[in-house]
Amino acid sequence: MKKNHNGKLKIIPLGGLEQIGMNITAFEYEDSIVVVDCGLSFPENDMLGIDLVIPDVSYLKENYEKVKGFVITHGHEDHIGALPYVLKEVNVPIYATKLTVGLIDNKLKEHNLLRSTKRKVIKHGQSINLGCFRIEFIKTNHSIQDASALAIYSPAGTVIHTGDFKVDYTPVFGDAIDLQRFAEIGKKGVLALMCDSTNAERKGFTMSERTVGKTFDNIFSEHRNNRIIIATFASNVDRVQQIINSAYKYGRKVAIEGRSMVNVIGTAAELGYLRIPDKTLVEIDQIKNYPDDKVVLITTGSQGESMAALSRMAANIHKKVTIKPNDTIIFSSNPIPGNEKAVSKVINELSRKGADVIFQDVHVSGHACQEEIKLIYSLVKPKYAIPVHGEYRHLKAQAGIAKDLGIPKENIFILSSGDVLELNEQEPARVTGKVRTGAILVDGLGVGDVGNIVLRDRQHLAEDGIMIVVLTLEKHSGSLLAGPDIVSRGFVYVRESEDLMDEARIVVEDAIDVCLDKHITDWGKIKNIIKDSLGDFLWKRTKRNPMILPIIMEA
Amino acid sequence: MKKNHNGKLKIIPLGGLEQIGMNITAFEYEDSIVVVDCGLSFPENDMLGIDLVIPDVSYLKENYEKVKGFVITHGHEDHIGALPYVLKEVNVPIYATKLTVGLIDNKLKEHNLLRSTKRKVIKHGQSINLGCFRIEFIKTNHSIQDASALAIYSPAGTVIHTGDFKVDYTPVFGDAIDLQRFAEIGKKGVLALMCDSTNAERKGFTMSERTVGKTFDNIFSEHRNNRIIIATFASNVDRVQQIINSAYKYGRKVAIEGRSMVNVIGTAAELGYLRIPDKTLVEIDQIKNYPDDKVVLITTGSQGESMAALSRMAANIHKKVTIKPNDTIIFSSNPIPGNEKAVSKVINELSRKGADVIFQDVHVSGHACQEEIKLIYSLVKPKYAIPVHGEYRHLKAQAGIAKDLGIPKENIFILSSGDVLELNEQEPARVTGKVRTGAILVDGLGVGDVGNIVLRDRQHLAEDGIMIVVLTLEKHSGSLLAGPDIVSRGFVYVRESEDLMDEARIVVEDAIDVCLDKHITDWGKIKNIIKDSLGDFLWKRTKRNPMILPIIMEA
Repeated sequence: MKKNHNGKLKIIPLGGLEQIGMNITAFEYEDSIVVVDCGLSFPENDMLGIDLVIPDVSYLKENYEKVKGFVITHGHEDHIGALPYVLKEVNVPIYATKLTVGLIDNKLKEHNLLRSTKRKVIKHGQSINLGCFRIEFIKTNHSIQDASALAIYSPAGTVIHTGDFKVDYTPVFGDAIDLQRFAEIGKKGVLALMCDSTNAERKGFTMSERTVGKTFDNIFSEHRNNRIIIATFASNVDRVQQIINSAYKYGRKVAIEGRSMVNVIGTAAELGYLRIPDKTLVEIDQIKNYPDDKVVLITTGSQGESMAALSRMAANIHKKVTIKPNDTIIFSSNPIPGNEKAVSKVINELSRKGADVIFQDVHVSGHACQEEIKLIYSLVKPKYAIPVHGEYRHLKAQAGIAKDLGIPKENIFILSSGDVLELNEQEPARVTGKVRTGAILVDGLGVGDVGNIVLRDRQHLAEDGIMIVVLTLEKHSGSLLAGPDIVSRGFVYVRESEDLMDEARIVVEDAIDVCLDKHITDWGKIKNIIKDSLGDFLWKRTKRNPMILPIIMEA
Repeated sequence: MKKNHNGKLKIIPLGGLEQIGMNITAFEYEDSIVVVDCGLSFPENDMLGIDLVIPDVSYLKENYEKVKGFVITHGHEDHIGALPYVLKEVNVPIYATKLTVGLIDNKLKEHNLLRSTKRKVIKHGQSINLGCFRIEFIKTNHSIQDASALAIYSPAGTVIHTGDFKVDYTPVFGDAIDLQRFAEIGKKGVLALMCDSTNAERKGFTMSERTVGKTFDNIFSEHRNNRIIIATFASNVDRVQQIINSAYKYGRKVAIEGRSMVNVIGTAAELGYLRIPDKTLVEIDQIKNYPDDKVVLITTGSQGESMAALSRMAANIHKKVTIKPNDTIIFSSNPIPGNEKAVSKVINELSRKGADVIFQDVHVSGHACQEEIKLIYSLVKPKYAIPVHGEYRHLKAQAGIAKDLGIPKENIFILSSGDVLELNEQEPARVTGKVRTGAILVDGLGVGDVGNIVLRDRQHLAEDGIMIVVLTLEKHSGSLLAGPDIVSRGFVYVRESEDLMDEARIVVEDAIDVCLDKHITDWGKIKNIIKDSLGDFLWKRTKRNPMILPIIMEA
């Protein structure tokens, strides 16, 4: 790579922070843009009815001719989930490791984009040239296989992006993180390190995935007579491998349940990331043919998702599995923040059915804790620190670590979506501008047709319901032909509140009389007078504020 | 107490379990009923727009003449909060310790019930006779002062109810839990122990409240130049006392912010449960007159509640306090399950403003962990174990502890709301029936006027919004006079979805044409045809399912 002593590298997060999970970052140097990851985010609590949130990629569309490709670090939803939507706007090739491409292909198939999208499988240690960038894939460990860090070589210098990672010296499958390569690149000089911050608040070191395997062995040994059901993340192939290992050791058949689990396991097995002994897997329909002590069920639902398989079993609405007192049910997961109550609800329901539920210490994180973060900084020795992945509090925690390791405060950047950070070796890096970014809401088939106004309406409707007032006016005279009729939904149980509804009707009739008497013919004014008088009345009587919607028709 | 060898004691939980927090339990022997606690619960996520949940006390109303009084263990909302509502139905005297009565009085004042309600202050060690019951108040420790366990003496035997408790050998205020009295009563023979299960899943021993005071001292010493803002639970008077102690030691003035905090602190100080050195407290308006290193602000909002003081400061909408980079902000609390995301949001917002936010290890629980629970069982040595307080998983965890301590499985009862457990010394205890119980939803001023139908409507509205179709038919001919007009709220952003709305109108017009052509005059049928055709169209086009509400008027 020819060094250029004047040009500047631009790093522009296009998602993230304001919307955790939407990992997508543009790296720009002159006429080349490379995009790292393209994730989606799940809706916040106040985004009623929304299914997914994807990034606004206006900046990429405006600079379409510069964009050389998507480079993907690993196959989790928050890194690949927005691809099917974004590719419809910016169709450029995708570069990723084998399992990652396999999981992306599943998505592209669903969206009918497989034929129109170029994908290229890259091996760890391999590099690709994209415009004036060279990108090297470096082996890391994470809660999904085939995760990569990226060394991004540009004429302005080298950036190392860790992706999501942990340091696992004894991984279940494949090699440990390539610490030597981090050191080697570091030794040559690294301009900036963009390091995973998810666990930056946690002291110490994340345990090896392999420790969970030992826990499974212990549980299988202690629950020899029980049917065993294990919920975990569909994408954690190593976890599933270890369950299969314990099952095999203890002479049990394994059934897989839950759509995403079946999909990921299928892809992983096909691509050789999972070793399943012959005759170990059985169909879910067959488990009834085996005694309890001869089966293990691996299922989705570890986050208490209401439609997932385990939740349906807990609620007694699963078609093929009925929970019974002889079941030992393991949550091999921790609740993701926000899911605690939902998980607890499922645990309670399973416990009530008499099952033994195990949910403590059967999981390890896929993210680096403080000591691992320090290790990477010490190997890479970057000039600039740009913490990535996590909420603001986590980025700030990593910034604190970087500072403790001797990186000057002015060389640490916590970027917001759209910030344009310009950097090279010569001048101090700084944020020089802001590009358009944002969260686009996906509801059913609609992408972006639900915005703030619609959401505010949904929140209002959710809080106190709606009262609709309809009336028909005579076209020429403006006199009342029909109504006013009042219909409510989500406000009060009408049959038990007849008096209130009768009084409300009188309030509306009085308001209309006032309008007619005063010869007010402007529909907007009439509607406002109805809204105000009915609103005041309802607030006084109920301390509630339903949406009031007057509809006037003309006949 | 005269022992009766035939009669049976009935224990009937009237809230709880199905609705965590609603602690209210009836103890019945022949013509006497005593009610322990009368708590409210906060709405679950799917109870849209609901403010509070209170217990259905039909059983008490039906047995009004038997009910001798409410005996309250301590002053937390989940033990006293429903009193103002329930007293309107069952007005009997209240017995509790001094601070507890003080906090109840605050509530009764708000509801204008102070004059009509008898309250009696009871001291620890004191007993009261209520019908054929004698109730003894026993000193315990908890995250609010003046907490009591109850020894409930009946002709059928003695029950010990711990209330919410922990074992604190070095409490901040007053005495440690009266373990000797537990032992003494235990020695004489206890029929049943009803013990707090909240922390029954946690190993070990809950730390003394006093340890938090040392942490405050350390933080104050390390942040001598910063303004300090501390959020904690309004009712944790000992916590506030320790903050005041540290503030005094480091020469800082203290301001209190947040309505519930001001209320509780006021009551506690007035009743002598809080020792505030002269000239330590200042009004919130005055803190601007002091340098940062001379003030501490104690505030509500430790659970990320959107309307609480700290959340308003974080969102820049607090009238009197603006967060700045020199602030050290302490969350002296853990998020209650379900509040994790809200708390994290506030931490992120405060961090973004440059404040230093401390939220780890500045809190201890108010509930007994496993070793404390074992201690109480070992002192009381009950015949029956009836775990109380907590979700099913927690009750089950305590049941496991009781079993480990040698209580036979058939002597351990996890009760559901309404279960009637009958017990005495002679025959095996058993659940003999079920009384009516339930959750009554409070929304604004309405108590019980929002039920399942209204909630389902709110959920439906929240998910996909509403489409209203209005038309006016001519009275005699049934011909179309006006409309159909379509109005939507919370569905799509109409201006960007004009095509969709135009097509929807055509679908509705076609449906109405079909009705008119076929001379369908039954409004119910017409409405169903409109609903079905519009619903099908919208689902096909958007994969969404808004509420469709046809309104027909007649002119």
